[in-house]
Amino acid sequence: MLIHSASQLLTLAGGPQRGAALGALNIIEDGALLINGEKIIAIGTSAELRAAYPNEPALDAGGCVVMPGFVDPHTHAIWAGDRAAEFEMRLQGKSYLEIMAAGGGILSTVRATRTSSLEKLITQTRPRLQAMFACGTTTAEVKTGYGLRMATELRMLQALLALNAEGPLELAFTFLGAHAIPPEYNDNPDEYTDLLCETMLPTLKEWWPSQAPDLPLPFVDVFCETGAFTLQQSRKILEKARALGFPLKIHADEFDNLGGASLAAELGAHSADHLVATSPQDIAALAASDTVAVALPCTPFGLAETHYTPARQILDAGGLLAIATDLNPGTAWCENMQFAIALACRYMKLTPAQAIAAATINSAAAVGRAAQVGSLEVGKQADVLILSVSDYRHLGYRFGGNLVRTVIKKGRPYPV
Amino acid sequence: MLIHSASQLLTLAGGPQRGAALGALNIIEDGALLINGEKIIAIGTSAELRAAYPNEPALDAGGCVVMPGFVDPHTHAIWAGDRAAEFEMRLQGKSYLEIMAAGGGILSTVRATRTSSLEKLITQTRPRLQAMFACGTTTAEVKTGYGLRMATELRMLQALLALNAEGPLELAFTFLGAHAIPPEYNDNPDEYTDLLCETMLPTLKEWWPSQAPDLPLPFVDVFCETGAFTLQQSRKILEKARALGFPLKIHADEFDNLGGASLAAELGAHSADHLVATSPQDIAALAASDTVAVALPCTPFGLAETHYTPARQILDAGGLLAIATDLNPGTAWCENMQFAIALACRYMKLTPAQAIAAATINSAAAVGRAAQVGSLEVGKQADVLILSVSDYRHLGYRFGGNLVRTVIKKGRPYPV
Repeated sequence: MLIHSASQLLTLAGGPQRGAALGALNIIEDGALLINGEKIIAIGTSAELRAAYPNEPALDAGGCVVMPGFVDPHTHAIWAGDRAAEFEMRLQGKSYLEIMAAGGGILSTVRATRTSSLEKLITQTRPRLQAMFACGTTTAEVKTGYGLRMATELRMLQALLALNAEGPLELAFTFLGAHAIPPEYNDNPDEYTDLLCETMLPTLKEWWPSQAPDLPLPFVDVFCETGAFTLQQSRKILEKARALGFPLKIHADEFDNLGGASLAAELGAHSADHLVATSPQDIAALAASDTVAVALPCTPFGLAETHYTPARQILDAGGLLAIATDLNPGTAWCENMQFAIALACRYMKLTPAQAIAAATINSAAAVGRAAQVGSLEVGKQADVLILSVSDYRHLGYRFGGNLVRTVIKKGRPYPV
Repeated sequence: MLIHSASQLLTLAGGPQRGAALGALNIIEDGALLINGEKIIAIGTSAELRAAYPNEPALDAGGCVVMPGFVDPHTHAIWAGDRAAEFEMRLQGKSYLEIMAAGGGILSTVRATRTSSLEKLITQTRPRLQAMFACGTTTAEVKTGYGLRMATELRMLQALLALNAEGPLELAFTFLGAHAIPPEYNDNPDEYTDLLCETMLPTLKEWWPSQAPDLPLPFVDVFCETGAFTLQQSRKILEKARALGFPLKIHADEFDNLGGASLAAELGAHSADHLVATSPQDIAALAASDTVAVALPCTPFGLAETHYTPARQILDAGGLLAIATDLNPGTAWCENMQFAIALACRYMKLTPAQAIAAATINSAAAVGRAAQVGSLEVGKQADVLILSVSDYRHLGYRFGGNLVRTVIKKGRPYPV
């Protein structure tokens, strides 16, 4: 299939973009690309490719932007129940304690998720993945972490494997058993840390290949934050995971600076995520590493907070920056990477070009898939968006809607 | 047609909601409504209406929320060109003067609109109206104001009349010849004010019935703001418009407090819009009147500003509050009233119920249509939304997407 007549073909060619290099879209005007099966096999101008492949079935982009599918590198897209009542209580001025007393907070999602069957988890999660796909996300990381005990965490992974097999949205998997201290360990958080290291992670290491023999091991992630896991507990869990061969991620500095970002850089994690209260030292440590800094602008927006990830400082230091939705039931129920881009422009002062690179090639790096997706290059997967606009800067400029007209996943087009 | 099995049928019955009364959704659980032609002819529980009308063709709401269509009471949805380049320059730290020197700002839209044919204006505006409708807006006010001379202003109205006739989105019309001082009157703004009063408004008064014999006169609106029209000029224009029989609106206090809100109340305007820098005195004057205070939260959001309309103070004073998108090419290209609701919850501290009432029955009042639309009541127009969720609080709680599954306009369903 030959996609031609793109006003701007954003290739994002050349690999992840570090520091000041962020925002190189590598645009081909009046561009075209040739897809064979699941792969891109040629890229050039419409004139070049139509001359070289005159008999290919054509898909006319109609003078619109063609670009790689978004890679959303941080979501909690699988859960049961919802927290609309909690949202309303917050607006009515209720305190966090009152909300907890009324059964709200993350543990309400844990309760609902623990009592959900595999089938129910799949049914509740599917429309969210469909909404992400319709908004142009072709690969999304999804975390467990509303089980906080092994049976439920594995059930969440099982549901995610089933949804990934169903497609078309392709998933990257993350085990977040260390999302919160489970209520039954409230007085003994170290004991839960030990359980994670000594039982849960080894169990996962055995279980995974039996369920997903063709997929690489999932990421292991820790919420390193006041009220969740200390830096020491986080180190213990991540070092154990690394020793077992798991790739790593961390939630760091959403509210307090505990040093999680530097820990991620030290341990060679694929990404450190949130990074709002991150210190200049942590930013320097990240920038000196290959760990991707993943900003989650929907989260402060969702909470009506004013502090966002200091993206310009991360870029000035030479860091690798990506953005994600953080889709979750508590702080940011948002499936749309285009909205994360609109926020990144306004509150992190990225240009549309920088935000687009942060949402494609750099976010692919954050989930270890920069060799397969995140750019349009010969040999890579044909994960392609056709927008309804002729200028890429409409991403960011416009907000609250969906500019994607067609999503092509592994070479197959899906109208939106 | 009988729509039944609504988990929550939000009727919003009882007319516009003032002050502390805002947010009365008047919900019927397991609700149903009966439509005949363009009108609602019965409302009740599913059991009641199915028993009373056993042979009606049924539309099963499937346990989802059913509510009135959104009324967007303030948009500049008709224009030519775009300002994506200006958005990018702003993010790169360029000053307002640099942007103006590069051909940006409102006058760039005026230039593009003045040179657009009727056909081109219609073609460029249609997809925006379609996007609004797909997001659940069934009635929208649209302003002229990118012509700033009579021929173009009338061409904009002609385009809007054609788009209104095309449907399905129903329009309310506003003449905003006083949107900005046209460049040719830069040194002589009073002369443009005189032109508006002595020539343009009387011309409009004659022209309108020849083009739209069945429609009421359009609103006349003035941008009362530093750099646009002074309070004195605004008064002159609005008084002349009132004398000619036009209903009134005003843009007031977006950046500076010039007293426009009190002027609106004094003159009996249908609405005063923006109201960010509004004083307690102005709020009191508004609250003592029937002028609706229309908040435009997408505008400070679009500009990444931190000040929003002081909604709680307006409600405490007993005012009538509505919300709108302010859809326009400079500060807020957003077609989605659901996003205005999400912002109103977070930045104006409305509850979802209050924001929904502000986006339906109260916004209908802001465009003088509260007797026809904005609530689901017997005898009113069948402008109805079926959402994809079972709890109305998902409006506000979730953001960046579209929760509308079906839009019913004048009794006719359109799947989204």
